[in-house]
Amino acid sequence: MRKLVGLILAIQFASIVFGQTSNHAQTFKRIYDEVLKNGHCYQTLDYLANNIGARLSGSPQAEKAVSYMFAKMNSYGFDTVFLQPVMVPHWVRGAKEEAFVAKGRQKFDVRICALGGSVATPITGIDAEVIEVKSLAELKELGKARIQGKIVFFNRPMDPTLISTGAAYGGAGDQRYSGPTQAAKYGAVGAVVRSLTLANDDVPHTGMTSYNDSFPKIPACAISIKGADALSNLIKTKTDGQVRMFFKQNCETLPDVLSYNVIAEIKGSELPNEIIIVGGHLDSWDVGQGAHDDGAGCVQSIEAIRLIKHLGLIPKRTLRAVLFMNEENGARGGVEYARVAALDTKNKHIAAIESDAGGFTPRAFGVEDTNYVNILKKWEPIYKPYGIDEIKHGWGGTDIGPLKKQGTILIGYMPDSQRYFDYHHTEIDTFDKVNKRELELGAGAMSTLMWLLSEEGLTK
Amino acid sequence: MRKLVGLILAIQFASIVFGQTSNHAQTFKRIYDEVLKNGHCYQTLDYLANNIGARLSGSPQAEKAVSYMFAKMNSYGFDTVFLQPVMVPHWVRGAKEEAFVAKGRQKFDVRICALGGSVATPITGIDAEVIEVKSLAELKELGKARIQGKIVFFNRPMDPTLISTGAAYGGAGDQRYSGPTQAAKYGAVGAVVRSLTLANDDVPHTGMTSYNDSFPKIPACAISIKGADALSNLIKTKTDGQVRMFFKQNCETLPDVLSYNVIAEIKGSELPNEIIIVGGHLDSWDVGQGAHDDGAGCVQSIEAIRLIKHLGLIPKRTLRAVLFMNEENGARGGVEYARVAALDTKNKHIAAIESDAGGFTPRAFGVEDTNYVNILKKWEPIYKPYGIDEIKHGWGGTDIGPLKKQGTILIGYMPDSQRYFDYHHTEIDTFDKVNKRELELGAGAMSTLMWLLSEEGLTK
Repeated sequence: MRKLVGLILAIQFASIVFGQTSNHAQTFKRIYDEVLKNGHCYQTLDYLANNIGARLSGSPQAEKAVSYMFAKMNSYGFDTVFLQPVMVPHWVRGAKEEAFVAKGRQKFDVRICALGGSVATPITGIDAEVIEVKSLAELKELGKARIQGKIVFFNRPMDPTLISTGAAYGGAGDQRYSGPTQAAKYGAVGAVVRSLTLANDDVPHTGMTSYNDSFPKIPACAISIKGADALSNLIKTKTDGQVRMFFKQNCETLPDVLSYNVIAEIKGSELPNEIIIVGGHLDSWDVGQGAHDDGAGCVQSIEAIRLIKHLGLIPKRTLRAVLFMNEENGARGGVEYARVAALDTKNKHIAAIESDAGGFTPRAFGVEDTNYVNILKKWEPIYKPYGIDEIKHGWGGTDIGPLKKQGTILIGYMPDSQRYFDYHHTEIDTFDKVNKRELELGAGAMSTLMWLLSEEGLTK
Repeated sequence: MRKLVGLILAIQFASIVFGQTSNHAQTFKRIYDEVLKNGHCYQTLDYLANNIGARLSGSPQAEKAVSYMFAKMNSYGFDTVFLQPVMVPHWVRGAKEEAFVAKGRQKFDVRICALGGSVATPITGIDAEVIEVKSLAELKELGKARIQGKIVFFNRPMDPTLISTGAAYGGAGDQRYSGPTQAAKYGAVGAVVRSLTLANDDVPHTGMTSYNDSFPKIPACAISIKGADALSNLIKTKTDGQVRMFFKQNCETLPDVLSYNVIAEIKGSELPNEIIIVGGHLDSWDVGQGAHDDGAGCVQSIEAIRLIKHLGLIPKRTLRAVLFMNEENGARGGVEYARVAALDTKNKHIAAIESDAGGFTPRAFGVEDTNYVNILKKWEPIYKPYGIDEIKHGWGGTDIGPLKKQGTILIGYMPDSQRYFDYHHTEIDTFDKVNKRELELGAGAMSTLMWLLSEEGLTK
C-alpha cells in the first residue's frame, strides 16, 4: 500500500513537473513561431532608426522617440501605458570636429569625435605636443613634468584574444571614462582616446567621459583606429621633431531637460503586485541611428510583452516593458525608475531583464545574483532548441542596475558579441546592420523568459 | 600496499587525462590567440572576393582563384602543395536576364536570374500564362490539362519558424532542384522558382537545377522574394484575365573544362598514413563574390593548418587543407578527391571537416556517423570558452561526402545560420558581409579540431 501511494505520488509529481515543462515547451513554440512569422519589432526599429534616427537625451529626436514609442505601445492595447518624467542632461556636439596630426613636414587629417560630456576646445582649437600612453598608471609614472601642456593620447587597444568582446571593452574602457580627467590632473590640455572597437576602420567611436571636479575639464575626443595607428606610427618614427596634434570641437552642456521613461504594462492575473520588467534604453548617442544600441533592445522589449498579449496568454504576474531614457550619458532614467519603484510599497519588482548588447543572435542570459543562477539554469533545456545555450552568472545592465538594492533579480540578455563593437557609438550603427531574424529571436528569448518568470516565479 | 599501488595508478591516470586536457587547453589558447591577433584568413578572403570575385567552375576567375590559392599555400611552406586535376562543367549565364509579369493593363518588371544548369529561352524569350504551385505534389494534382504550355511558378517559402535556416532551406529546395524538370513532365514551357531565402528583398538567388533526361529541358529561373510576392498577389487579385510572364535568359552549357582541387599538406610525424582533411569549395556561383559561399571556408581551411605550422606544433597525423572545385554545379572536385584517395591504399583518410555554411560565429560541429558523435563530444568542455556549445549529430558536407564509403568520419563545421541565406547564391554575397572576428573564430575552431583529431585519433 505504501509502495502504491509512493508510486501514485511519484506519478503525480512527474506529471506536474513534466506537464509544466511540456506546457512551457508549447508556449515557447507559440511565441517563437509568432515572432518569426509575424513579428513587429523589425518594422518598429526601421521607423525608429530611419525616420527618427539618433536620439541623444534632451534632443528633439529623443522626444520624437518618446512620442512614437508611447503611441506604438498604446496601439497594442496594453492594460496601462504611461510616461514617467525624468530630468536628463542635455549635451550637444555642435559643429563637426576637426583634427590633424603633424611632425616636421608631415601632416595629415585624422577622424575624431568629441567624447560625450566633454567640453569644447577654445574656438581656435588646441594645438599641442602629443604624448602616447597605454594605461592610466603610466600617467603617474610620467608625472607633471612630462605631461604638462600636452595632449595625452590613450592608445591601449581592446584585447582581441578575449572571446567576449564585452570583456575586451571593459578592459579598455577606463581610458575613455577616466583617462581625460586623470590626464588633466597632471596638467594635460587635451585628451584623445583610441576608439573602443576591434574593427580596423576609420570611424571614431564616441561614448561618455567623466570629469572629476578636482581637476580642470579638458577637451576629450575619440580617434578612429586608423587615425590612432597612424598617430602612433608617427610618434614611433625616428625623424626629429615633436608630434603635434590639432583638434577643435564645439560641444557644450546645456541645462537639463524634461524627458521620460516610456512604460507599458500587462496586469498580472494572480499576483499582480509582483512585477517583472524587460527593458532597453530609448536614448542613443547623437551619431548614427542607435539601431543596435539600443533601438534593438527597445523594440524587443515591447515585442516581448506584445507577443504574450497577442497570443492570449494570461500572465500570473504583472509584466512591463520599460524604455529607459538617458542610459548613455547619465543613466537618469534607470535611477528614476528605481526611485519611484522603491516608493511603491504595495508592489515589488521581482525580476528585471535588460537587452542592451545589440540585436544579434541570442546566446545566453546572465543572472547577476549568483544565488539565483541555478534557479534559472533549470530552464536551459527548454531554451536549447532556440539556440540559447546557457543561463549563467552575468551582468544585468545599466538601466536595471538601480533596482538591485530592492532585491530585484537582474538578468542581462546576452546575444552574440562579435559584431557589436564594430558599430557601437558610431555613425555606422544603422538599421541595415540589424538582421531581422536575429532581432526576432532575441525578442522571442526575452518574451519566453518573461513568461517563465511570470508563471514560475523565483523561489529558491 | 595494494591501496598504495591503486592510488599511484589513479594519480598517474588522472595526470595523463588532466595533463592532456590541460595541454590541449594551452594549445587551444595559442591557436585562438594567434588567429585573433595575427590571422591571415580575412586578408586572403579580401583578395579572393574583391580582386578575383565570382568564380564559377570553368570560368577564367575560377582558374585565377586556383593560381592565387596555390601560390598562397606555397608561400606558407607546407610540406606539399599540389593541384589535383578534375574536369568540370562549364555553364555560363550569358547576357543579363529580363522578365516581367502582366495581367490586363497591369505590367511590371521582376528580378530573376537563370538557375544554374538551365537552358536558355528562345532568343525572343518565353511569354506564357503563369500557374502558381506550392509543392511538387500539386503538379500531379493539376496534371497536364492545367500545366501544358504554361510557366509553373513554385512559390512555397522557406519555413521561418525553423530555428536552423539550413533546415528551412532543405525544406524548400526541392522546388529549385527538381521543380523545373517535374513541371516539364506535365508540359510546362518554363519554370520560375521563389528564391531560397528568408530575407524580404529584391535579390534573386541562383542555385543548381537538375534536369531529368526523360523530360524536355525547359528554361528555369529564380525570382526575387519581392517579385514572387508581387506575382502571387497579381494571381490572387480578382480582376479578370490571365497572369502572364515573360522572361528571357541566355545561358548555355559549354564543353567540360580542366580545373583543379588545390591541396596543401603537413606530413604527420608519427602516423603519416592517417590523413585528416579540412576543406571548403573554391568555386562559387557567378554572381556576387562568393565571400560566405564558400570563400570563407577556403580561407579558413588554409588558416587551420597554417596556424598549426606557424606555431611550431608537430601533428602526429597528416593534415591537409583541400579547396574543392565545382561544389556548386556538379561536385566533381569532391568526387575526384575521394576517387584518388580510394586508389591510394597506403594512406587512409580518417576524418574530414568541411566549412561550407558561411563565415559566421561558430556554434557547433556536426558528426555524420552517429557512432562517433560521443567520441568527439568529450571535447565540448574545451570548446565552451570559445563559444562552441555543441558537438552533435549532423551533416558533413557535399565535398567530403564521397569519402564516406572509405570509412572517413565526416564532420560539418556549423556556424550561426541566421544570416547565411540572406546572401546565399546572390550578387550580395560580398566581402563586406563577412565579419573578421567571426571568420577567424571559425578558423580557430577548425584548426583546434584538426589538432585534436591529429593527436587523439578517433578510436571508439
